[in-house]
Order: sequence, then structure tokens, then C-alpha cells
Amino acid sequence: MPAFAQRIYDMEGSAKIIRALFGAMGDPSIISLGGGAPASDALPVEAVREICADVLTRDKRGVEALQYGSVLGVPDLRQAVADILLKPKGLHADLDELIIVNGGLETMNLLCQVYIDPGDVILVESPTFVHCVEIFEMFQAKCVGVECDDHGMVLEDVERKIKELHPKFVYIIPTFQNPTGKTFPLERRKKLAELGSQYDVIILEDDPYRELRYSGEDIAPIKCFDKTGHTVYANSFSKIFSPGSRLGFCYASKEIVARLFDAKTATNSHTSNFGQVVCAEFFNRGLYPEHLKKMREIHRERRDAMMEHLAKYMPDGTKWVHPDGGLFTWVELPGGIDTTALLPEANAAGIHYIAGAGFYVQRGMGSNAMRVSFGNVTPEKIDIAVQRLAALVKSKL
Amino acid sequence: MPAFAQRIYDMEGSAKIIRALFGAMGDPSIISLGGGAPASDALPVEAVREICADVLTRDKRGVEALQYGSVLGVPDLRQAVADILLKPKGLHADLDELIIVNGGLETMNLLCQVYIDPGDVILVESPTFVHCVEIFEMFQAKCVGVECDDHGMVLEDVERKIKELHPKFVYIIPTFQNPTGKTFPLERRKKLAELGSQYDVIILEDDPYRELRYSGEDIAPIKCFDKTGHTVYANSFSKIFSPGSRLGFCYASKEIVARLFDAKTATNSHTSNFGQVVCAEFFNRGLYPEHLKKMREIHRERRDAMMEHLAKYMPDGTKWVHPDGGLFTWVELPGGIDTTALLPEANAAGIHYIAGAGFYVQRGMGSNAMRVSFGNVTPEKIDIAVQRLAALVKSKL
Repeated sequence: MPAFAQRIYDMEGSAKIIRALFGAMGDPSIISLGGGAPASDALPVEAVREICADVLTRDKRGVEALQYGSVLGVPDLRQAVADILLKPKGLHADLDELIIVNGGLETMNLLCQVYIDPGDVILVESPTFVHCVEIFEMFQAKCVGVECDDHGMVLEDVERKIKELHPKFVYIIPTFQNPTGKTFPLERRKKLAELGSQYDVIILEDDPYRELRYSGEDIAPIKCFDKTGHTVYANSFSKIFSPGSRLGFCYASKEIVARLFDAKTATNSHTSNFGQVVCAEFFNRGLYPEHLKKMREIHRERRDAMMEHLAKYMPDGTKWVHPDGGLFTWVELPGGIDTTALLPEANAAGIHYIAGAGFYVQRGMGSNAMRVSFGNVTPEKIDIAVQRLAALVKSKL
Repeated sequence: MPAFAQRIYDMEGSAKIIRALFGAMGDPSIISLGGGAPASDALPVEAVREICADVLTRDKRGVEALQYGSVLGVPDLRQAVADILLKPKGLHADLDELIIVNGGLETMNLLCQVYIDPGDVILVESPTFVHCVEIFEMFQAKCVGVECDDHGMVLEDVERKIKELHPKFVYIIPTFQNPTGKTFPLERRKKLAELGSQYDVIILEDDPYRELRYSGEDIAPIKCFDKTGHTVYANSFSKIFSPGSRLGFCYASKEIVARLFDAKTATNSHTSNFGQVVCAEFFNRGLYPEHLKKMREIHRERRDAMMEHLAKYMPDGTKWVHPDGGLFTWVELPGGIDTTALLPEANAAGIHYIAGAGFYVQRGMGSNAMRVSFGNVTPEKIDIAVQRLAALVKSKL
């Protein structure tokens, strides 16, 4: 057979992690703290069914849902994004500054198509979301980790690395970060937007968890402080509507969206109109506020259960993040325990997590850490899972 | 702003054509023979509504439809592809030889991710589907046109160019080709599959129109004659179920599908489960045969109307293809009329088509030709549109 493209070899490391991540899904004997799914119990199944029954007729939106549509997305879904999701944050988007994509991650893919040549540098958090690293490496970007403290990226290190490495993007998940659950403070957001403008670097702000806040106050997106169009705002409907409908959006300058249009046509023409029409109706019928309230309640209870049980069961010396929202916490084990080596034993004990090392682009970091998700696990199962984890860890000390 | 990636400059020519193609959609004063959409009247709106009402409940498939799913696609949709779409053609696919993609074009994108480095050669028909050229050029492939006669690619020229240029792919739409409506004969299919094996070249068989046959006998896919895994079979649900649900599939060797898995995760994780679940039910409830019959009837009537009116109205010296199926015919005008130059006048006269030159990767070819679609135009409007076109052309002779 013909040789694979070079990018296939360049992405092999992160692709292996992603394969393992998908591979571990679906074993019913294991309580998985591994995935990034929201609670199945909270998905708006009934609302979607009612919307379909109402609008999927020939005289309403049935043909629109099933026929080819617009590259940038169904107009009233983009309008809902502008009015319901962005305006309350102080962001004022025109419809041609928005593109609907096939799940939040697709923005990262399309933006790489527009900007990334092989060897271009992308600065990422340490640790960062490995799935996006896979995308960046598929485009043969060189990902460089930025020093992070308890609040995320240390800006002195960002500026130093911008000057030294001339990156195309700084990729950041500022709110309830994946994998750590940490939130990037307001002052740093302002300053990071300014660094993007000052040094002509795109700040790629990936913000899929922000609506799932359980405590503390909302913090404005980095995009709010962007005066030059250098910040690109990526978000997803996966955590506020449905992951399975694969819907996300990108808010960027008209100039960038015009190029994302080309990249989108050369990827898959447009995002499913079927899903978009139903999602647009969900938002425009006013169903979102009540649904979000329910999503927050269910996930807050799980976050609290995770915090409570980690405190109750885990041995002294274990550290973890108390996230104000989102789906993840980041657990660091004592005694030099290697979470990658421990994983087969954890699976045998009936639990799954994602080992921390895979979230770093630098080798040798995060070996004692793990990403722990509480999104799609009931409080009762969180209790059992943390007991199992604690027993296993104690047996190694 | 930072510089765009080199690929953005390399794809600019084809991107311009695609932008114009999408841009001309939706003007109600113009009868468009431009797009590639099937008849809106034939879309299975009622069936989709009934399926949604039935399965989108929490105890049936509601959670599956709205939650994250598998990278390769919903299993019973892949099974339907194997049993209902492939087996009757003599193709025996395992589930791990199939991946569901976000519309038929996405297969071309994903396969380029796996195989195409900048400068790699892809052989294409003359003329070929410009939208796929945009994809190939985004990956910085060099597209080279193969000599075609009334039946498609001339194999002597394919073999000569394989020996000389060592292409990675030969891209072909063998059945009711886009843009010409021509069909590649059986003997050439066998021989092309053999050329792929003999010279270690991937034959990329794009077959979205084959089910829409209105006359003549079915011809086996090239993939049927592939003994070495060199033929990759791409198809779409756009013409047999719904374009707006953005569903397609690729059937290839396990080795290739394993890499398409990686490319898919690095593009958008997976295709919408929502659309896939509904589509799987559509096929597995046995609704497809009756629907296909209706699709063929509606489109046959439109094909016949197009043939009749071209014969009735167009001036002597005009040539066109009589397609046995699909959505397109290819019209060549007499008297050296340039269809690109004529297009603004055609739009002013209330009709739209796609000028032929854009479908050639070689400059200067097809200047007197146009792609004419009869898919989403009623017979009455086809009559009016061809009258308008004929009057305009006659005024130029």
C-alpha cells in the first residue's frame, strides 16, 4: 500500500492516547471516570422529541432540516448564539462572524487549516486537552507547553515563549479547564488578549464548560478584551444541549470566518441541518434556561459527591482541584505512584480514569496525576469508584 | 493578523468556484440548474418525523441519539450499509471496514489526511467534481487531469500518467459522473482496479449517484474487482436519504479504516449520532426500497424533461449527455460561446448553471460547456429554464 502522509507519523503519540480513550468506553463492568460526557440523565430527550414532532413537517421546517443548507450554518441558530449565548457575556456578534461546526473540536481543526503550516508553534497549557493536541499534531504544528500555576497559564512564560518561538496560536481553555478544572482569572484574561494583539498571535479560547458553573461568579471570556480580532472564541453545544448532535460554534472576525468558510467546504460542506434546526428551536422556544438549571443541579451534585468522597477516602498526601464548574477534577497521588502503570490494575478493580502524563506535551510530567470526570457518573457510583481508587492507591503506599 | 497557511493560497482557485456555487443558491427569481441537490419534494420528511416520534424516548434510542457515540459510527447504521447497500452489489463489508462520515465529501478529506503530503499527485477525470479538487488542493496535492472520452477515463492515459507521475490516488466518479452524467463501463472498471493493485495506487471510487438509475442496467462498482485493498469506496446518504443530515460512508480495508479513525477523531470526533440513529431506523424498518422507487420516479421525470426540452429548444450544434441516472447533464454550446462570460447574462435572464471551465484542472478547457442539474427543479421549471437558455444562446450565434 502507498505510504501514509508524514502527519500520520507526527500525530501517532497523541492518536494512541485518543484511541485508548475511546477504546475504554462502554465496558459495563467498569465505572468510568475517564470520558468527558455530560450526564445522560440530563439530556433533553423529551424536548427534542417534541420539537421534531412539531417542526418536521413539510409546511414547517422538514425540508430545511433534510435538504442542503448554508456553509456557515442555519441562520436562526447563529442568531440564537448571538442573542442567547454571547450577548449576555458582553459579546456582540454579527451573523457573518459566526460559523456552526460539527462539534466544538471542529473549530480547532478548521482554524488549523487556515493558519497552520508544518512546524508552526502552538503554545498550550500544561497540562492541556490531549484531543486538541492530536488535532494540532495532525497539522504538524509543534506544541509547546506553557508553565501553569494554580490559576492556569503564567503570563510571564507566555510572553517569553511568544518572543522566543513566534507561535501562531496560544490555545487555552480558560474556564473549568480540561483536564484540571482550574479557572483562569479575570486580570490574566485581559492581559492575554492584549498579548495576542501586541505580538500578532491568535488567542484560541476554547470555552465549552463555562455554562456549567456550580459555585463562584461568572468571569468574562478573553474575547471580551480583544480589540484587534486576535482572539477566536470556540464553543460547543455538547455540554448545554447534546454531544451526540455534534454541534459547536466559532465566533471570530469576518476576515477569519470567511476563511473558515473555505476550510469548512473543503472538510464536509456544512454541519447537519437536521441537528441545527432542532437545536435552533430548542433555544428559540426558550427551553434553554430551565434546561441549564437542571444541568447545573445534576452536575453540581456530582461535583460535590466527588469532592466529598475524595476527602473521605483518599490517603494523606493526595491533592485535587476543587472546580467551580465543568466536568473534571485533577487528582495528584502521593508516594510517586505512576498513574499510567496503575491503570491496568484500576481497570481490573472496576474503575477507569485518564492518566495525567498524556495531557502534557512535555515528557515526564504528570506521571502521578489523573483526570477524573464526574459528568456521567451518578453520586452513588462516584462513591464506589473513589472507594475503589483509594483502596488501590493505599495498597501501593 | 498572522499569515495564512500556504494551503489557503494553493486552494484559492477552487475555493473561489465553490464560494460562487454556494453564493448563487437561494435567489428566488432565478431558476437554478446549478446546485447538486436532489428534489426537495422527494425528501422523506414524514418518515423522519415518525421515526423521531417513535425512537426518541428515554427507554428507546433518545439517549443514544443525544450522547457521544462511536468514532466509526452507530453500529446498526454500519450494519445497514453492509447488508442493504453493499451486499446486493457483491461487496461483503465487515463493520470495522466501514466508517460513517459527515456527508460523502468528508471521506475525501479524511483520506487526504491519511495519505496526502504537499506535492503528491492525484489523477482526476477531465472534467471532474470541483468540490473534491478544492479538498485535494487544500491538502496541497497536485491534481492532474486524465484524458476522457464519451465513457470516462481513457485507461491508456491513466497508465501512462501513473508510470510518469506516481500518483497517490486516482479519483473517479464512475456512475452518472459529476459533472457530465457519463458512466464508466464494466471492462474499464475491472482494468482500473487492476491498475491500482499493479502500481500501488489508491483508486478512490466516489459513487453517490449510483442508486438514482432511471434507465439501463446496474454496473458493479470498481471495488468489486479490487483484490488488494487498493480501491476505497466512498458513498453518501445525501441522494438516497437526506443531504441535510450530512451522512456518508467509506468502505475500505481495515488498515485504512483504522487510520481514518484517527483522522476522524482529529477532525470532529464522530458524525452526529442524532442523524445516524434516525437514518439507521429508516433503513432497518424497510422504508428504503419504497423511498428509492419514489426518488427514481421523480428524478427520471426530470431527466426526461431536461432531455426533451434540450432537444426541442437548443440551437443546432449544441451537444449534451443523455445520463442513465444521477442529477446532471453536460451541455456544450456551439459557436465558441464562453459559458463563464455568458453567466451574468444568464442570471439576468433568470437562470443559473455552473460554467464548465471550473470543472477542469487544466486551464482553457470546457469554456463552451456547462453543468446542468435537473435534481431540484420541477419539469415545468426545466421547460422555462431551457427556453430561456436557448433564447440567450441563439442571441449570441
